[in-house]
Amino acid sequence: MADETSGQKSKGIPPIPDAAESWARQAWTHLESVRQATPLIQCITNFVSMDLVANVLLSAGASPAMIHAAEEIPDFTPQIHGLYINVGTLTPAWLPAMKAAAQVANERNKPWVLDPVASGASGYRLKACLELLKLKPTVVRGNGSEILALFRGSLNGTSKGVDSLHESTEAVEAAKSLAQISGSIIAVSGAVDIVTDGERVVGVRNGVPMLQKITAAGCSVTALIAAFVAVNPQQPLEATATALSVFGMCGEIGLEKAGGPASLRLQLIDALNGLDRDTLHHRAKIENM
Amino acid sequence: MADETSGQKSKGIPPIPDAAESWARQAWTHLESVRQATPLIQCITNFVSMDLVANVLLSAGASPAMIHAAEEIPDFTPQIHGLYINVGTLTPAWLPAMKAAAQVANERNKPWVLDPVASGASGYRLKACLELLKLKPTVVRGNGSEILALFRGSLNGTSKGVDSLHESTEAVEAAKSLAQISGSIIAVSGAVDIVTDGERVVGVRNGVPMLQKITAAGCSVTALIAAFVAVNPQQPLEATATALSVFGMCGEIGLEKAGGPASLRLQLIDALNGLDRDTLHHRAKIENM
Amino acid sequence: MADETSGQKSKGIPPIPDAAESWARQAWTHLESVRQATPLIQCITNFVSMDLVANVLLSAGASPAMIHAAEEIPDFTPQIHGLYINVGTLTPAWLPAMKAAAQVANERNKPWVLDPVASGASGYRLKACLELLKLKPTVVRGNGSEILALFRGSLNGTSKGVDSLHESTEAVEAAKSLAQISGSIIAVSGAVDIVTDGERVVGVRNGVPMLQKITAAGCSVTALIAAFVAVNPQQPLEATATALSVFGMCGEIGLEKAGGPASLRLQLIDALNGLDRDTLHHRAKIENM
Repeated sequence: MADETSGQKSKGIPPIPDAAESWARQAWTHLESVRQATPLIQCITNFVSMDLVANVLLSAGASPAMIHAAEEIPDFTPQIHGLYINVGTLTPAWLPAMKAAAQVANERNKPWVLDPVASGASGYRLKACLELLKLKPTVVRGNGSEILALFRGSLNGTSKGVDSLHESTEAVEAAKSLAQISGSIIAVSGAVDIVTDGERVVGVRNGVPMLQKITAAGCSVTALIAAFVAVNPQQPLEATATALSVFGMCGEIGLEKAGGPASLRLQLIDALNGLDRDTLHHRAKIENM
Repeated sequence: MADETSGQKSKGIPPIPDAAESWARQAWTHLESVRQATPLIQCITNFVSMDLVANVLLSAGASPAMIHAAEEIPDFTPQIHGLYINVGTLTPAWLPAMKAAAQVANERNKPWVLDPVASGASGYRLKACLELLKLKPTVVRGNGSEILALFRGSLNGTSKGVDSLHESTEAVEAAKSLAQISGSIIAVSGAVDIVTDGERVVGVRNGVPMLQKITAAGCSVTALIAAFVAVNPQQPLEATATALSVFGMCGEIGLEKAGGPASLRLQLIDALNGLDRDTLHHRAKIENM
Repeated sequence: MADETSGQKSKGIPPIPDAAESWARQAWTHLESVRQATPLIQCITNFVSMDLVANVLLSAGASPAMIHAAEEIPDFTPQIHGLYINVGTLTPAWLPAMKAAAQVANERNKPWVLDPVASGASGYRLKACLELLKLKPTVVRGNGSEILALFRGSLNGTSKGVDSLHESTEAVEAAKSLAQISGSIIAVSGAVDIVTDGERVVGVRNGVPMLQKITAAGCSVTALIAAFVAVNPQQPLEATATALSVFGMCGEIGLEKAGGPASLRLQLIDALNGLDRDTLHHRAKIENM
């Protein structure tokens, strides 16, 4: 797994591999900074994902705190390094705490990341996501359908309905436009993950299809983005891309030992905990598009 | 595992094996229809089970949606293929959403399945279960004590108290009566699982005792019933029996690789994801009683 | 793993090993009593830990019931053998049910155990923990920071802030004082776990550092304490120490088969389910301090 390809590189390979190597170095730097800084990440996430999100953050070296009571935000949120908000099992009682935490994060210049799960599933949910989007998340990550619903909703507020047919590549233009409208980094998960600030577009080709058979895999990678951005707040686009790559490659490593989705989930967490520099360098597939 | 017994069958084996073979064929057809149709199953379930329920549904090929806010039901529930309601961690705030979702499912002719967890644990819980039962679930699955509590409550509303001593076989008569009163298919889990529409009774002899050491195993098999019934709405009794058999045999397969309850849970999910036709045919133990 | 050291013991080993052997015998007796009595443990715990807590209790032989609605407590709580309260994801709606359950437990002489998760994270949370502490839990288990926050809060109510730097050994004096003030057994997790009733101090040296990379590991060991105390209500200090030892040794056994935190979690549960007398005797590291 650790066979370095630098030997091949000296034989005149064009600029893109150099960029790829630069991305791989950056991915390692970001992971190392999470492990060393152990950032405190407040997670206001859905009930289904809490366990996996916390375990993924712990395996990455971060320190998760599942604290969502509005009463605690004035005391607690100022102490965090990053905030993760996920609307997966949203009910009206939770939305004010999400907004309050996002506002404290903004006031204190802490990055925060939004996962607009199933944003198009209902008018209620889309409205909530658009209200959170107005609070200027540092990063928004969703699948193609979720980002498209947000984009259409940002334009006219009329999009709704579940739609999981849109591939991430088709959502690139929507993502770029949404990044320009919102000021957030937009990440779109798919066969190729896309990250954009509205001008630059970065692609990540790590991951395996079986991740779609693990509930909360998407929620967990967004939490990992929050940890990476928390320790690299000046480089949110880069940190988002490297987090997506690291999570995806742990899926690849995990699948080699897995007999199905449950063992993939286990192996992914173990792989993230033990990921070393050479493996990461060998696996990272990030490119400027 | 895949040794077909058809060779033996040609030597004059009596009608029951033919029925068994017919059941096995049906179980495979039902599982295949879930995998091909990927039905959208709305789950309003308890906090303990959300993760396992979602992963079991994904491994079976279904598409789970953990959406329980009353605000979303008018938009979202009309789009589903099946609904799963579980009262495990019931609080008053959740009951109206459960009822609203059941009513939308009824209006749209979507099947829905009720898991009356610990129905006899308190008067409050029993009353809630009886109110849900009046909304005519397509299927109700519980253990013997839960079904007995529902039956007694249907008669006079006075049953309460936790009671896990009743074996499923002793609950058969209560299940038949409850099916006649309620119009629902009633399934009773136990050493032998029983499924009845009030007249026919089907027995399922798959599963292993260690499944009782995995929290939410019962919740998960009920969710699987919802997926099987969603794609076979005209055959709810048959779909319930085949779902119980498929889940139980994945427990059997899992136990062969497991060193305890946590690895059994993992292996069960992996087995469900990879279950093939020959293994299913060889393992299925469903019979008309 | 099962090599008995009794042969060595006859060669004149001083009193402390005898005490250690006595502790090991007691640990086995306590585990066996859980397996035989299958105590019903009501858990009002946080969303992140519900799944792991329930599975750990099942693997130990106990019967968990995740019932937290205030409406059910008058009917249900009188039937339990022990109560576990954990404030991890506390919101105002949950606190009255926690208090009501603790009061019923007290009236019925059922032991109850408090896990004051992140007690110093906010003023709101500390106040809630102190209110629960006034309801005289049989046992309180936390890490050094949590116990220190409770202790300072008991003195003047002004402690707050996240602080995970205090090692358990530094918190011994605070634990002893808190035990005297509160009348509860106080357990402090750390490199060495400490258990005290305000006079006696017992140390437990089982466990592995990687347990800190599993979310809800602390919550789960506190639930195990509730099960051990439920079947040994006259010996809460001893039952707390033996539960800590059993959980820690299952972590040790698990780590031998684990490749990271997720497989450690799985192996720990499997080990708890299968733990035998010889292994327990060989592993237990409990001492009077």
